[in-house]
Amino acid sequence: MKHQPIGVFDSGIGGLTVVRSLQMAMPYEDYVYLGDTARVPYGTKSPDTVRRFACEDALFLAQSGVKVIVVACNTASAWALPTLERGVDIPVFGVILPGARAALDATRGGRIGVIGTSATIRSQSYPRALLARDDTLRVYSRACPLLVPLVEEGWTHHPVTVAVLREYLEPLLRREVDTLILGCTHYPLLRDAVREVVGPGISLVDSADSCAAFVRERLEHLGLRHPDTHRVGTFEAWVTDEVERFAELASRFLGRPAEQARKIELPMLRRLP
Amino acid sequence: MKHQPIGVFDSGIGGLTVVRSLQMAMPYEDYVYLGDTARVPYGTKSPDTVRRFACEDALFLAQSGVKVIVVACNTASAWALPTLERGVDIPVFGVILPGARAALDATRGGRIGVIGTSATIRSQSYPRALLARDDTLRVYSRACPLLVPLVEEGWTHHPVTVAVLREYLEPLLRREVDTLILGCTHYPLLRDAVREVVGPGISLVDSADSCAAFVRERLEHLGLRHPDTHRVGTFEAWVTDEVERFAELASRFLGRPAEQARKIELPMLRRLP
Repeated sequence: MKHQPIGVFDSGIGGLTVVRSLQMAMPYEDYVYLGDTARVPYGTKSPDTVRRFACEDALFLAQSGVKVIVVACNTASAWALPTLERGVDIPVFGVILPGARAALDATRGGRIGVIGTSATIRSQSYPRALLARDDTLRVYSRACPLLVPLVEEGWTHHPVTVAVLREYLEPLLRREVDTLILGCTHYPLLRDAVREVVGPGISLVDSADSCAAFVRERLEHLGLRHPDTHRVGTFEAWVTDEVERFAELASRFLGRPAEQARKIELPMLRRLP
Repeated sequence: MKHQPIGVFDSGIGGLTVVRSLQMAMPYEDYVYLGDTARVPYGTKSPDTVRRFACEDALFLAQSGVKVIVVACNTASAWALPTLERGVDIPVFGVILPGARAALDATRGGRIGVIGTSATIRSQSYPRALLARDDTLRVYSRACPLLVPLVEEGWTHHPVTVAVLREYLEPLLRREVDTLILGCTHYPLLRDAVREVVGPGISLVDSADSCAAFVRERLEHLGLRHPDTHRVGTFEAWVTDEVERFAELASRFLGRPAEQARKIELPMLRRLP
């Protein structure tokens, strides 16, 4: 099992920010990535639909022979993790718990803000994870549905994006949060714009970085780390919509030119009973 | 056949603007609506994926016993119409041709602008439909990916939306278009904001209204109009994601409280061979 790749899935291309962090933390591992680009986004869909799509994604990765699955998508982590843990017989890691732990480490005054998609915020996953560890915390959440489209439009440093962030973050700033969880794979690309709006005094917690540290720790604990940590691992990408659009956007999230992806149709009708 | 309902499908809820126009033009007809809310949007997806989803949508409506199918979604009309016409044995109408005809009627100087989703604009369907009728026209297009999310966020009269529209429409205004096609089901809800940006001198062509007039004309021509034009028809809605979210947003598009929708999972695995 140790030699098998790490599987990572996301509703689309945003999860590549998690791959980027994983590759920085563990360059010696191999990665198989699945982006469900035909059905993206998940963040505006219902819990049932998110769970159904996430199960199909995880099933594809499990059948590809990965040793663990990382759910890069905050929305899928929020709604589907228990279902996935029951559905596949390999370890499954989400981004919520690592993000909550990182926020707990970062906060000085115990006032934590969370931003994410509508579905992630509606799930209350971050507040629950935070309050389970420290019930004296004050947690304030805000759904920010326009941020993903703004990132995909490439307007990461656009005045419109700053204006949108000002409106979304105003209620959290009024509550004087000292830490802000960027609870969506797309948000690390908005770090500069968020910083401009919140000022220098607030800690920004990025679920990609905290997830990578968490997965490395768990792999070592489970004895699943690749035995040769001096090698450079491979990266293989699958998408459910066309591969050209993936290549076009992927480099922006990955921080380097992206490999060619291959296409898979989900659900895999031919393989179902 | 005359007594059968009219089928209408869309990638999501935006197509209800077309239902609203159809009901105003033909209140005596019955309507069955399908919104593919689990896989919305289509406008950012590839032609192949849009065609696959549109065929599944049309197949569901055809199996429900409708007499004709109206493709309310501009993106699906742009990419899937010939495929749908081959795939089902009832008439299929899209929104592109009616929109192009209405723009031809409206233009005074022959300079026409088109806005739509990335996929609709990439298809070049509007310019092709316009230039096939008059090759002296000048047609200028612009993809506006942020407009659908802004409408779904409810920011139809928000300063941010006006700022986004200013940026998107600036190149078209510089070309001095005299007519602007609102080439997406969501855009009728932005009519006021668009008017604020383009000023009073430009004709706005709404694909919902022009489509309704076109379908009425075609039904009469084909002898498919409901024989009793004094009755008030019924409306039945199906969605692929949860019904609650549909009810929440539908009234905004329909201009009146929305009926309860029912849920169908696509593709219909159980019914496939």
